[in-house]
Amino acid sequence: MTNYFSSDFKLGVLGGGQLGRMLLSETQKFDIYTVILGDNQQAPCAQICNEFHQGDLFDFDTVYNFGKKVDVLTIEIENVNIDALDKLEAEGLTIYPKPASLRIIQNKAHQKSFYKEHQIPTADFSHFAFLDELKHSYENKLIEFPFVWKAAQFGYDGTGVKVVRNYNDLQSLPEGECIAEKLIPFKNELAVIVARNADGDIKTYPVVEMEFHPEANQVEYVICPARIEDSVAKKAQEIALKIAKTLDFVGLLAVEMFQTQNDEILVNEVAPRTHNSGHYSIEASYTNQFEQHLRSILNLPLGNTDSKVAGIMVNLVGEEGFTGDVVYENMDAILKIDGVTPHIYGKKITKPFRKMGHVTIVNQDIDIARKVAQQVKETIRVISK
Amino acid sequence: MTNYFSSDFKLGVLGGGQLGRMLLSETQKFDIYTVILGDNQQAPCAQICNEFHQGDLFDFDTVYNFGKKVDVLTIEIENVNIDALDKLEAEGLTIYPKPASLRIIQNKAHQKSFYKEHQIPTADFSHFAFLDELKHSYENKLIEFPFVWKAAQFGYDGTGVKVVRNYNDLQSLPEGECIAEKLIPFKNELAVIVARNADGDIKTYPVVEMEFHPEANQVEYVICPARIEDSVAKKAQEIALKIAKTLDFVGLLAVEMFQTQNDEILVNEVAPRTHNSGHYSIEASYTNQFEQHLRSILNLPLGNTDSKVAGIMVNLVGEEGFTGDVVYENMDAILKIDGVTPHIYGKKITKPFRKMGHVTIVNQDIDIARKVAQQVKETIRVISK
Repeated sequence: MTNYFSSDFKLGVLGGGQLGRMLLSETQKFDIYTVILGDNQQAPCAQICNEFHQGDLFDFDTVYNFGKKVDVLTIEIENVNIDALDKLEAEGLTIYPKPASLRIIQNKAHQKSFYKEHQIPTADFSHFAFLDELKHSYENKLIEFPFVWKAAQFGYDGTGVKVVRNYNDLQSLPEGECIAEKLIPFKNELAVIVARNADGDIKTYPVVEMEFHPEANQVEYVICPARIEDSVAKKAQEIALKIAKTLDFVGLLAVEMFQTQNDEILVNEVAPRTHNSGHYSIEASYTNQFEQHLRSILNLPLGNTDSKVAGIMVNLVGEEGFTGDVVYENMDAILKIDGVTPHIYGKKITKPFRKMGHVTIVNQDIDIARKVAQQVKETIRVISK
Repeated sequence: MTNYFSSDFKLGVLGGGQLGRMLLSETQKFDIYTVILGDNQQAPCAQICNEFHQGDLFDFDTVYNFGKKVDVLTIEIENVNIDALDKLEAEGLTIYPKPASLRIIQNKAHQKSFYKEHQIPTADFSHFAFLDELKHSYENKLIEFPFVWKAAQFGYDGTGVKVVRNYNDLQSLPEGECIAEKLIPFKNELAVIVARNADGDIKTYPVVEMEFHPEANQVEYVICPARIEDSVAKKAQEIALKIAKTLDFVGLLAVEMFQTQNDEILVNEVAPRTHNSGHYSIEASYTNQFEQHLRSILNLPLGNTDSKVAGIMVNLVGEEGFTGDVVYENMDAILKIDGVTPHIYGKKITKPFRKMGHVTIVNQDIDIARKVAQQVKETIRVISK
């Protein structure tokens, strides 16, 4: 085994956001020297990693030169220059997840084709190199409203996805490569995180459930374990395992899925990294997703993915109407409640809907946790001074 | 409430060792800007805090000038210049624990006198301003072998404590102010951590037990909860609460105690800070001791001190015969076991008996955790290249 701990070994991470910041908690715990490439000096990771480099994650030379400084390279965001990773890998650098996996995942059309090719259940879709092709397809009655439009590349946190219900919606879509996907009237949105190391050891976390606001149609709570039947959970985990194995994936893979009205599981999309749906694991799991990511990419034995207690996560996003120096109103009120842990991502400026942090609620009893989560959501406000 | 999170607020910490490092994990989680004064640039905190200042913690001007840079000042080690803290406090700086509490605790003779004065049970002792006074006392048959010698000040990790069994032991003691304490033939060594904030909110953690090696007479495992009767645990917690309240203490107070053969509790000593006996809490407790320390000194509501699961801690100390660049031998073997989490303190150089890290073992079943802890202890070795 390589001597990672308190040694000269250098782990490189592409991306300096909150996922990187939470990973740093684990590299600090193991004393693994960590070098980060982020796009600005105010990035959540900038102050607290061993070495921070500022640069453009899409720039070939920047990524290539950064890769030359480290012993193992990983990502905290998938939108990076993959050509540079291919060259680094060809020159012998260990990169996990592998550039080939990232290439399939980074483009949603490739991702969907991969599912079809390998009989992984997913909603039917059509692929368009340009928006005009999609419009022609509609005019020729090859696709019908409603459908889900997805930009092929570089969407995040809901940007790059839109339900197209009418002609106005269609006209407002941005240019570029895209897919049109059948709208699935789902019963539940689920997610499963899979960890796999280079030796092929593989483990799934429990299935989590995204609970939506009944009117706003926004995810309000990520709940672990999902309140679904065991047979459905098992099916979801098996599909997630199949994707990771088929990709020969190394690292953490977050698989988002729909549970349909008749309990079919359809894959929505995957992320090749730690994921919002796994944040609960910091407080609830024997091995949190960030430690597990490290174990995976360093080919260490994988940790126990079971939960100690039930966990629910609430995102902290900037409230509408507030832009400026952030204030977390009523933080003291939520800290009074047992089992409540806020995570603040280190962004000084709040903007409407900006992800500023999250709160985890844990309890032996998932129903109590769910009530507390609602109390937390109704109490704390992310506003500006 | 002061706006601590992602704000201009600055928390100052005296000391840059592993306790500070684990505290930084929590200040990062809450995005609280943290400035550290440590004695060298290789200190475990140096690389990962927002600002690191190098200086002598005993030097009046160094501590005073450091205090002028921050909004609230705390410690991770009690051996600091208290005169400087008195002056800073008089000038209006918030310092927790209070300098007055530190003054009582820093000197073991004062500490013991405090217990006697307030009817807090502790072993009988005599106080000597010089070693010669102790020797005279022995010659005049005022004290008898065996007794426990303790340096009045600046001992740590067992230095400054010695069981004096004969005349040779007596001759080998170092000069300086000291106490001679009655040797207690104890059944168990226990510890209780108390948290108290400025509003007077107060909570105890469960009683933990130090299990000793049957021959070496060294603590091998810290076990939470202690395997003792409830009535004994309750007595221990009540004594710990009384000490914290009587001191008007703010912060975390770790109280080490003896359980005598007839189930009396005698206070051994206290530490005014996070403590080795509370490290299990990172994995096992709803609120770990480092987050709780922050909550206490910032006058935030205290978190739940209950455990999610049983926790056992094993110290990782440098093996005898090895000095140099550290290697953690068989780390992969212990990572294979469920519920095992190593914490590496960031010290590049190992020396015999140097505290290099710890390993936490958690399990729903304390007996399984205890077996795993032994397996961990027998497997991992802290050696040099």
